[in-house]
Amino acid sequence: MSEELGVTTKRTEDFSKWYLEVVRKGNFIDQRSPIKGFDVILPWGYSVWESIQQKFDRMIKDYGVKNTYFPLLIPERLLKKEEKHLEGFKAETLMVTEAGGVKLEEKYAIRPTSETIMYYMFNLWIRSYKDLPLKINQWCNIVRWDTKITKPFLRGREFLWQEGHTAHVDREDAEKLIEHVIHMYYEIHKLMAVTPLILVRPKSDTFAGAEYTVVMDVLLQDGKVSQGPDCHLLGQHFSKPFDITFLDKDGKKKYVWQTSWGLSTRQIGILILHHGDDKGAVLPPEMSPIQVVIVPILFKGQEPKVLEKAREVEGQLKALGLRIYLDDRDYSAGFKYNEWELRGVPLRIEIGPRDIEAGELTAVYRTGGKKKFVSPGEVIDMLEEIQKAMAVKSERFLLDNIKNVNNMHELKEASKKGGFFRGNWCGSGECEAFIKSDSGGAEIRGTLYKKNEEPFANCLHCGKEARHVVYIAKAY
Amino acid sequence: MSEELGVTTKRTEDFSKWYLEVVRKGNFIDQRSPIKGFDVILPWGYSVWESIQQKFDRMIKDYGVKNTYFPLLIPERLLKKEEKHLEGFKAETLMVTEAGGVKLEEKYAIRPTSETIMYYMFNLWIRSYKDLPLKINQWCNIVRWDTKITKPFLRGREFLWQEGHTAHVDREDAEKLIEHVIHMYYEIHKLMAVTPLILVRPKSDTFAGAEYTVVMDVLLQDGKVSQGPDCHLLGQHFSKPFDITFLDKDGKKKYVWQTSWGLSTRQIGILILHHGDDKGAVLPPEMSPIQVVIVPILFKGQEPKVLEKAREVEGQLKALGLRIYLDDRDYSAGFKYNEWELRGVPLRIEIGPRDIEAGELTAVYRTGGKKKFVSPGEVIDMLEEIQKAMAVKSERFLLDNIKNVNNMHELKEASKKGGFFRGNWCGSGECEAFIKSDSGGAEIRGTLYKKNEEPFANCLHCGKEARHVVYIAKAY
Repeated sequence: MSEELGVTTKRTEDFSKWYLEVVRKGNFIDQRSPIKGFDVILPWGYSVWESIQQKFDRMIKDYGVKNTYFPLLIPERLLKKEEKHLEGFKAETLMVTEAGGVKLEEKYAIRPTSETIMYYMFNLWIRSYKDLPLKINQWCNIVRWDTKITKPFLRGREFLWQEGHTAHVDREDAEKLIEHVIHMYYEIHKLMAVTPLILVRPKSDTFAGAEYTVVMDVLLQDGKVSQGPDCHLLGQHFSKPFDITFLDKDGKKKYVWQTSWGLSTRQIGILILHHGDDKGAVLPPEMSPIQVVIVPILFKGQEPKVLEKAREVEGQLKALGLRIYLDDRDYSAGFKYNEWELRGVPLRIEIGPRDIEAGELTAVYRTGGKKKFVSPGEVIDMLEEIQKAMAVKSERFLLDNIKNVNNMHELKEASKKGGFFRGNWCGSGECEAFIKSDSGGAEIRGTLYKKNEEPFANCLHCGKEARHVVYIAKAY
Repeated sequence: MSEELGVTTKRTEDFSKWYLEVVRKGNFIDQRSPIKGFDVILPWGYSVWESIQQKFDRMIKDYGVKNTYFPLLIPERLLKKEEKHLEGFKAETLMVTEAGGVKLEEKYAIRPTSETIMYYMFNLWIRSYKDLPLKINQWCNIVRWDTKITKPFLRGREFLWQEGHTAHVDREDAEKLIEHVIHMYYEIHKLMAVTPLILVRPKSDTFAGAEYTVVMDVLLQDGKVSQGPDCHLLGQHFSKPFDITFLDKDGKKKYVWQTSWGLSTRQIGILILHHGDDKGAVLPPEMSPIQVVIVPILFKGQEPKVLEKAREVEGQLKALGLRIYLDDRDYSAGFKYNEWELRGVPLRIEIGPRDIEAGELTAVYRTGGKKKFVSPGEVIDMLEEIQKAMAVKSERFLLDNIKNVNNMHELKEASKKGGFFRGNWCGSGECEAFIKSDSGGAEIRGTLYKKNEEPFANCLHCGKEARHVVYIAKAY
């Protein structure tokens, strides 16, 4: 696999084809599995997932969330308990009906999300206000038989995620948790050097069974948007059908208030589609499984000297706590440059006989440019510089691509180029549907979370008084 | 949940009931899920799994194994490719036949193990000897519709595991890998303070599709045995039907040699069933998610002083790199003692006003006894002492419970008490079946791996010349 050429398609030529090349040749994912939409996550892609996992897992543990593992299968009767939830998921739920060739008495769904199976247990576990808040998480696989398979990582039929589920004494405590979860997701995006837009989805796109849904929408380089993690206030929509009650301090029996929230392997796709360039992926130092790759330039007869120096530098950088790979494989230096650029490693150090003589090494930035350095400590500064520059670029990209639109004509014009369009909406479902169909697919993604914006014009479609400033975009 | 009483059953009264109490009240697992055999792994049980995962993941990464993720579902046609493999798994394979209420064109199996789906991809990935060895691992869930559900963790219908899969140029290289995997599994058992017997299974119990299977069998306190991890030489049994070939250095096209190996959440059950006592689980310091719990003894008016000291000790021990939990919850000290004993935390430090005055703290060993200490550094020694003592006890327990048997009469007598029985076997399947049925279920578990033992008597059943010294036991 690794002997194939680098990326041959430019982003401007064919963004989708460019992406498919990057994820496959960069060792992120392989779509050739025998079952469509169920892709194989390759070692490099998986190690990016491990980076995300480790960091988020640390955050939630520090916040008192406990990891658990719940059954993959959900009896059909449980799925049916919350009507809207069932409605939202039934079309894409896979059913197990046979075991060892024999028909089962009951059908089981492969979890499309775990609210119902988890809350069946919450009913058994929660008795008193002392049991609350209950903060549970699981890292697992999810299957949704989506008919719309767009891009690997972004939308497939199986993905990996964490799903957090909490129960609280009241709405206030549940909403406080949501605020903190959004904060943690935002921190993850900072490490990804990605600036998301934090939105509250319109009713039409609220999670099946939730009061409201908060999401992180990320703008990709083609001007379309992908939803990252989301977080739902479930209110008492599940605690009532699942009869999850507690005895409060006042001696009264009450239904708990709940939240659920998830972050998935989609983040890997977002990283590539947001930061990548024509050579491949560009990973921010905080997230890259390898932060610095050392490539020895081997000339006949000078190998031992060069390798010795390379190992010395490797040791010094590892001692600084950096994630280092010394690439001493039997390939040409050019081949190695290509490969690590494709995979997106932020910094490359080239070590040849001349560098050793000069007493200076060269660091090549994945984001462009190079720098000579003497002390290993300088590498830390360079990585910080890259992280910061990527974050600044991401923020600017977002801000530069939010355009105010005052009417449908302006929206239609703007949506030809992509980006977020900031417009005004009366709040009706009719206008929402019209906006999407008339603009060729740009949809209302939501209103800013925790920031009340005053409408600056009338509703885009009906022209009546607007109630919300909304962000509109084409999405994956 | 946590307010329930401690363990009320003694091991000698009812070993199974004792175990069920420990796993549930100790926050390891909950069997009350709505689907039989699919248990919920509770936070404490899951954190033990994370301990095992982290350590093993580190080991395999250092050995160059790469983590990946393969599809949960396997098209039925793929499962059928290796005949014996299909034969071995078809009775317990769950089939997905519907999506969104509509019948699928093809049936998909939920992975009972991933050889077939992985090797479909190996066929695409491997071209040249340069691609070998290929060393892949995945951490995932597995479903087997077992009709024999014995104990939680030991045998359920869904479990978590790692499955390693490798491909090599020849048998020698594959067998070298097996030797190293067995070494790594043995290291994990050392950290578990468990001495296993490393056996090569008889043909009758070899993995479906393998040439031979090496396992770790662990003796539990009731005299029965549970299989821990296993490792299979698949030879070319899969590479031929899946057509996984490579161009060797000599220019010839050859089939690869393969191995697969797995370690599962069963280890959690083994830890409890091997080390537990009448108060609950006993976890070795290397594996316990919390190594030391600090319990402040709060007397009215003295709380601030005691809590301050407790926090100081917590900080000191954390600085030593230990996993510490300061239990300042609003429960009585006695309740806390019970709970942490039940969960198996190896060391407890009690801090009360008198200890502070005396300038000495008390550490209580989960394995029995207590010790006064002054310097935090002594805690490290105590943990090492516990780890060592548990390992020594485990080894002695195994050695004391291997009994030589010369004939069926001796085997029948010995098997009433449990343990391993060392006997001689001619190698025939008939004698193997007779030994099991006539002894009331004690079965040939295998011969020692990499140690050739000379038979010391004739075959237990037929009395003809024996070919193997075998280890016999009743198993879960």
